[in-house]
Amino acid sequence: MRVMGVDPGLTRCGLSVIESGKGRQVIALDVDVVRTPSDSPLAMRLLTISDTVEHWLDTHVPDVLAIERVFANHNANTAMGTAQAGGVIALAAARRGIDVHFHTPSEVKAAVTGNGRADKAQVTTMVTKILALQQKPTPADAADALALAICHCWRAPMIARMAEAEAKAAEARRTYQARLKAARA
Amino acid sequence: MRVMGVDPGLTRCGLSVIESGKGRQVIALDVDVVRTPSDSPLAMRLLTISDTVEHWLDTHVPDVLAIERVFANHNANTAMGTAQAGGVIALAAARRGIDVHFHTPSEVKAAVTGNGRADKAQVTTMVTKILALQQKPTPADAADALALAICHCWRAPMIARMAEAEAKAAEARRTYQARLKAARA
Repeated sequence: MRVMGVDPGLTRCGLSVIESGKGRQVIALDVDVVRTPSDSPLAMRLLTISDTVEHWLDTHVPDVLAIERVFANHNANTAMGTAQAGGVIALAAARRGIDVHFHTPSEVKAAVTGNGRADKAQVTTMVTKILALQQKPTPADAADALALAICHCWRAPMIARMAEAEAKAAEARRTYQARLKAARA
Repeated sequence: MRVMGVDPGLTRCGLSVIESGKGRQVIALDVDVVRTPSDSPLAMRLLTISDTVEHWLDTHVPDVLAIERVFANHNANTAMGTAQAGGVIALAAARRGIDVHFHTPSEVKAAVTGNGRADKAQVTTMVTKILALQQKPTPADAADALALAICHCWRAPMIARMAEAEAKAAEARRTYQARLKAARA
């Protein structure tokens, strides 16, 4: 499975592509950071990010796009910009029929370090080890994008089981409703 | 000038187009609300909103897109969805070379009612009067989209003067820097 990981942001947006193999095997194919100038109009910044992500999607043709779920807890203004960037990135994948999955920062940290509250340095160290990189990916946004893709690969079997269970539950609900309707008729 | 006004949102997104004439003259050309189901995946909801906005942009060919500037003050989760929707809408305009302007809710309320803290009912009443509509636009998102477009038309001369003053100041800075450099050489 080929996964594109994205750490969304207006000033710096981390992009990565990794390929998963047997078990927990993961190989880094590409990683980079898109930057847009803060004095540029918002719509132009979103256009730059969208164009770059579309180019990556068309070049790497990932099966899934894994993106960070943003919360408005910390810096509200930054969070809004991050959400706007995340919106155009999710849209680019949806336009190509590519599945989009959101992972929270603590899910990503837990997946790669075993600790949902790990700091940036720990995430970078583990990403470097897991992917057997010759040097630490910088800036942190690049490491985060790789961590997101790894997180998705490793959580994918669990996500698939949950989707299956959800589908079975929905089917059971429909059967129950149909029988109830038949019994009342 | 033809202005498309957008009140961004995932569940309900208000869209309007108005044409401004001499002085404060404004005519409503179209108004509608796009809805996306809350149980649909986020990327699909963004795709529906983007497709609809692109269709409006291509049909009405506005000179400007006026959109609400979202703040994360109130409901953080709703604000994130609103920002994601706003992002894909601004992107659609940027792709077509259409200027995007953001107006805060209080700027919009002040423009149409004279009171930056007016409630939804006051905004709807004034929008109905200003545009001489036969009935009040519903839901509130439709009225808000019209209010945004009106706000942009009426603030446009001021925005243009500010942009001109900003350009002159930038030119003056460049001239000063150039003379400083020449004096030092």
